Parts: sequence; C-alpha cells; structure tokens
Amino acid sequence: MGYWLYYWPSIAGRGEFVRLALEDAGVDYVDVGRDRGANAVAQMIHNGDHFAPPILADEHESVSHVAHILAWISRPLDLAPQDERDFRRMHQMQLTLTDFVAEIHDTHHPLGASLYYEEQKEAAARRSAVFIDDRLPKFLAYFERVLTDNPDSDEWAIGRRCTTLDLSLFQVMRGLRYAFPNALAENETPALDELTRRVARRRRIARYLDSERCIGFNEDGVFRRYPELDRPDQ
Amino acid sequence: MGYWLYYWPSIAGRGEFVRLALEDAGVDYVDVGRDRGANAVAQMIHNGDHFAPPILADEHESVSHVAHILAWISRPLDLAPQDERDFRRMHQMQLTLTDFVAEIHDTHHPLGASLYYEEQKEAAARRSAVFIDDRLPKFLAYFERVLTDNPDSDEWAIGRRCTTLDLSLFQVMRGLRYAFPNALAENETPALDELTRRVARRRRIARYLDSERCIGFNEDGVFRRYPELDRPDQ
Repeated sequence: MGYWLYYWPSIAGRGEFVRLALEDAGVDYVDVGRDRGANAVAQMIHNGDHFAPPILADEHESVSHVAHILAWISRPLDLAPQDERDFRRMHQMQLTLTDFVAEIHDTHHPLGASLYYEEQKEAAARRSAVFIDDRLPKFLAYFERVLTDNPDSDEWAIGRRCTTLDLSLFQVMRGLRYAFPNALAENETPALDELTRRVARRRRIARYLDSERCIGFNEDGVFRRYPELDRPDQ
Repeated sequence: MGYWLYYWPSIAGRGEFVRLALEDAGVDYVDVGRDRGANAVAQMIHNGDHFAPPILADEHESVSHVAHILAWISRPLDLAPQDERDFRRMHQMQLTLTDFVAEIHDTHHPLGASLYYEEQKEAAARRSAVFIDDRLPKFLAYFERVLTDNPDSDEWAIGRRCTTLDLSLFQVMRGLRYAFPNALAENETPALDELTRRVARRRRIARYLDSERCIGFNEDGVFRRYPELDRPDQ
C-alpha cells in the first residue's frame, strides 16, 4: 500500500491531518510537495479533478478534502470504527472539525485568503474577538461532550479504538495552543487535554513529531500566533 | 421510507439542498421546523449528536452536514451514480460546493454570524470585492469544467444520470442569480446555465418551486441581495 500526498511544502496546514493518519498507521507515502516542490502540487490541481489541496492518491485514484480523504483511508489504515453507523458519525464529526478549522483560519484572514494579513488586521481583530467569545467555546464544548459521552470508550471519540478523528482532534488542540494559548486557557477541556496527551504518546506519532518530516507551526499556515488576536497576557 | 428534516423555518438556506433531493425523489418527509417551529430544531441540536442544522433523520438515525446527508440519502433516493468511484467523486465535489456556499455566506458576514450585517458592512464590502474578483470566477470555472468534462453525459455533472450534486448546483446558481446578478453576468457559464434550466424543468422540482413549501430567497438566508455588495448596475 503506497500513497502520494500533494500539499504545500512549507506549512503543516490542512495536509497535517492526512500526514498524522499516514504516520500513525506506518504506511509508505511520498510527500510530493516536499520531495518535488510546490509546482508539483499546483500541477496536480491543474490537471486533475480537484479544487484545492490536500490531495491524496494511490495507484487507482486521487481524492481531495480532508474529511473525505480520511473517510477513504481510515479503514485500510485500521483507524476507523467497526460499526457502520459509527463510521458515518465519525465522518460527520470530522466535517464539524473541518468547519472549526475554517473558522480558525478566518480569524487571521476574514476578508479573503488572497490578501495579506497586514491588509486585514483590523477586521482580523474583530473576527478573532467574536471567535474567542462565541465560537471557540461552542466547538470545544461540543467535542468535549463527544469524548465524555462515548459509551464505548473512555479514551477515544468514537467506538473502542483510536480513529482518524482522534488524530485530527489532537492536531486542532495543538494548533490552538500555539495560536490562541490565552483564549484556550479560558475553556475547561479536561477530556480533550487528556486525548491530546494520549495521542502524543502513540509510538509512531511520538517518533514523527520528533522527526524532520514534521513541520512546526508557522505564520503561513492555518494556526498562526499573532498575539494581538489572542486574549492579552495576564 | 420517511424522513424528518430539521432546519430553520424562515429561510431556504442550507436546508434547501436537502429539500430539493427529497422533493425530486418524491419521498415523504416532515419539515419539522415549519411544522413545529424553530424551537423543535434547536431542541434536536441540543439533544443530539449534531453541531448545527440541517439535520435529517429516518427511523434509525440522524445525520448532519449537507454533503454527508446527501451522500447518505442519494442511493435510496436513486440520485447517485452507480459506480463506486463516481460516488466518491460526487461527494468530493459536493464538499467543494459546501466551501463555495460558505464563502458566499461570508460575503455578508465576514466578521461572524453572531453580528448583524449592519455591524460589518464595511468588511462585507471588502470581502465581497475579493470574492467577486478571485473566488467566484474560480469556483464557476471549476464546476463549468466538471460539466463539460463528464465523459458519461452531456447533461449531468457525474455519471449518466441526475444526482444530488446537480440539484445542489442548480440551487447555487439560482442563489447567485438572486444575490450577485451583476457579478454573475461577468462569467461565462453556458453548461451551468443549461443545467440550471434542465433541473428547473424536472417534473417534481417544477411543482415544488411553484408550491408553498418552497421558501423564496430573503435577507436572512445564505444568498442575500445587498446591491452594495454586487458589482454596480451598468
């Protein structure tokens, strides 16, 4: 089983949700953008059926949209719940996470991704305030409840085992801790915090996070540290 | 086969993508929000596994997120491609349409859905200009190419038959014609225009559009007519 991941080489971004699944499963994959440059990614979008990266391909087909990619590979990677209805719920919650990530992105780019942050700083400050007041607590409370209400496990979001959704929740919590540490600290999320530690301890994830394959957060990605958008330091 | 749709009663909004599929298939469904009021919708979100409406339920389970709902019901409603890979591509393109709809919504609410339009008019004007210049042409060109490149049909987006994706494309084109008629006219979209006419002529869709069940566009929904956000009249 081999995969080709097409994503921008200089950021973790949305590609990281796919990378974490591939890394945790220990499967072979080529990170095309990092191997052959951003042009190879742009070319794949231009040639193919896809609107935007990340795109994941095997020998037979290529698939885009994070939640859709994860639904496609979670079973072969043994990162899916067994039950069919749980599988649908996993995809549904991953789509809610997709919306959460889009709103996190838009805190620094409320007027459009084609403008620089510096061109929309004032709007970004207003959007971030609304995000921190209204949206962040709502999303966190939702996923906190998903974890505490899972009848099949005290450890994972759905079913009895770790799924791609848990790996994605880990990444969002890491990203929020990078981008909005003060706002995050206003929310009580013991189950999400414990999940984040649990995922970080998984053998292949721990090794990946320590490796050069793992790109740190930076101010070109989805999760950006602009202190002026976070709550002020105490 | 019966369904219960949970969506806000006063707008077409994202619920309309689900309604169009149910109406085209001619299946029985209860529009819970319109029958029993917005409180019944709020209650369903509060009780259940869902972050936001629309939510569709049958006797066994309930599902949220438009693209996920449509993937769930398209086969039983006979609005899905036969081929498994085409089915995945349909879902993928529906997710791209989800992103398009989110960007259309954000033209009038760039700073957050919890603020009134009147509180963010200036930011909305800037975001709309970026949308009209960069994003609208890009999304339209993508879906235009989807239609013209379908090897199996000159009439539909994927496979040989009308799918939930075609019905959703119809709704987006109608909505854009309502919200951004001048900006839309700057784009050449003959295949999308023809698809829109073709869907409007479908027997059950034509009957639905004429019925009282069909809520028109208004300034509380996703597609809003604010002339100051569109290109100026010639």
